[in-house]
Amino acid sequence: MKKGVKAFAPATVANVACGFDVMGFAIHHLGDEVTARVCQTPGLHIRKISGDDGRLPTAVDKNTAGVAVQALLRYLGTSPNIELEIHKKMPLASGMGSSAASAAAAVVAVNALLGNPLSSEALLPFAMQGETIASGVAHADNIAPALLGGMVLIRGYDPLDIIPLPSPPDLYCTLLHPKIEIRTSDARGLLPKNISLRKALTQIGNLGGLVAGLFLDDYELIGRSLEDVIAEPQRAKLIPGFAQIKQAAMDAGALGCSISGSGPTIFAFSNGAEKSGKIGAAMQDACQRQGVESAVYQTRINQMGADVVSQK
Amino acid sequence: MKKGVKAFAPATVANVACGFDVMGFAIHHLGDEVTARVCQTPGLHIRKISGDDGRLPTAVDKNTAGVAVQALLRYLGTSPNIELEIHKKMPLASGMGSSAASAAAAVVAVNALLGNPLSSEALLPFAMQGETIASGVAHADNIAPALLGGMVLIRGYDPLDIIPLPSPPDLYCTLLHPKIEIRTSDARGLLPKNISLRKALTQIGNLGGLVAGLFLDDYELIGRSLEDVIAEPQRAKLIPGFAQIKQAAMDAGALGCSISGSGPTIFAFSNGAEKSGKIGAAMQDACQRQGVESAVYQTRINQMGADVVSQK
Repeated sequence: MKKGVKAFAPATVANVACGFDVMGFAIHHLGDEVTARVCQTPGLHIRKISGDDGRLPTAVDKNTAGVAVQALLRYLGTSPNIELEIHKKMPLASGMGSSAASAAAAVVAVNALLGNPLSSEALLPFAMQGETIASGVAHADNIAPALLGGMVLIRGYDPLDIIPLPSPPDLYCTLLHPKIEIRTSDARGLLPKNISLRKALTQIGNLGGLVAGLFLDDYELIGRSLEDVIAEPQRAKLIPGFAQIKQAAMDAGALGCSISGSGPTIFAFSNGAEKSGKIGAAMQDACQRQGVESAVYQTRINQMGADVVSQK
Repeated sequence: MKKGVKAFAPATVANVACGFDVMGFAIHHLGDEVTARVCQTPGLHIRKISGDDGRLPTAVDKNTAGVAVQALLRYLGTSPNIELEIHKKMPLASGMGSSAASAAAAVVAVNALLGNPLSSEALLPFAMQGETIASGVAHADNIAPALLGGMVLIRGYDPLDIIPLPSPPDLYCTLLHPKIEIRTSDARGLLPKNISLRKALTQIGNLGGLVAGLFLDDYELIGRSLEDVIAEPQRAKLIPGFAQIKQAAMDAGALGCSISGSGPTIFAFSNGAEKSGKIGAAMQDACQRQGVESAVYQTRINQMGADVVSQK
């Protein structure tokens, strides 16, 4: 057994417009770092959390990283003395998969500490259990890209079926994070229980177009397909000026624009870095006009998932 | 202007399980042949229909081929004297796109007779108008593959957006046509107006998996994705023994099995010709046990759409 392992997992965008609930992708720049160390105190502990302004619980069974690692250790039938240190390098409750990044980095760090008994894919169910604490449901659309990287489709849950999808090399994602907070559970509460068959078929056609566009490197088809008629119309209400910000992104050349996860972050796709920059500026201006401060990021799809940064 | 053109359009499978209402593909062996000839009588006429047991109307505005050609001629702003002869080489009301094949072959024949002013893609809207007569709705999921061949996704209708999809070379389709008839309008009447969000998301995940599987030549993924939770559970009631026939197909090694179009034909995918044959025999046995006679066909995806057979 190693003495200590530091792992990083990327932030992620889930609910990719028509890919609501079934697609997600990893991004660059943002994510969580988790260090797992052998310690003297019996059991699993969260020793320290930084970058969260003191808001996240250090109680193992209330923390997404703690719950994920507990589930992993239970499966492996081992109970080593491990302490976790979590360093958040991304905003909380932003809709960019903050809890998924913690859970993914934690299971990767502990798995490596134990000599990598499991593959990244095999770590998925345990990391998903961490997510349950955050959102009330065991979703994979942030966890799967946080662990595996790239763009992924969650075909189904019974059994869990994760399909890695390609993405064009110049597909950029601009992210606008308005400095407001939305609770995932509030956003889920806005979802209708039933929808019209017509809306379902519209979403299905678009999802097919998006998947085909990703395989074909067809930026225009990706753009035409990026329409969410199920979740976005409801959840947009939680983001001041969403319609104006989206319009600004589209006017600046975005292929498409929708809500990242359950918000408030808004993502826009574009073809190339230059457009991505212009789109970010336009979105931030539009957000500012609503009287809301924001942060902007621009990134390609991150093809690398959670991984070990250093170990000893 | 030529004197006469004979064109053929293939039969098609629409409603490809989770691809209900958004996907279709062309098959071999079955289809319709339409001959368009310059004649002396003013206007457009249907001179003869064969292979239909006298059941199809020869009145131009009541026949799918007639309506489609009328729409084409109106668009082209021309009213030549043309007679059509329709030779059906496939069963009517079988769920294999019989009316689409007539409309597709007719517009291709007349377009060629007029010196090909339009491309195959551009003929789509006119052929779709012929479909309206048959099903009451202007659907493209039979017409698009009948005209263009191969496997297609109809991403959306506003505007019409047809995406050609690849398919693995050894993907075989077994078709069982039970000798009963279902009217498309009856089958459409069984569809729910609203569905649960959960069902919509299941269908969306599967459609994504099916499109990805087609691009990846991943037969297993195609198979796992071939589940329709929206239309099949309702429409299966119209086909005696559907559950048993599907089970027989799956037991014989089918990747997946569902209703072709609005039925009663049942299609099953498999990897390779040998399995396709076994599946056909098993399905026919199961159908026979219901006391229903049937015909069986086996085919690869037909990559060729409607085309001219001969001209003078």
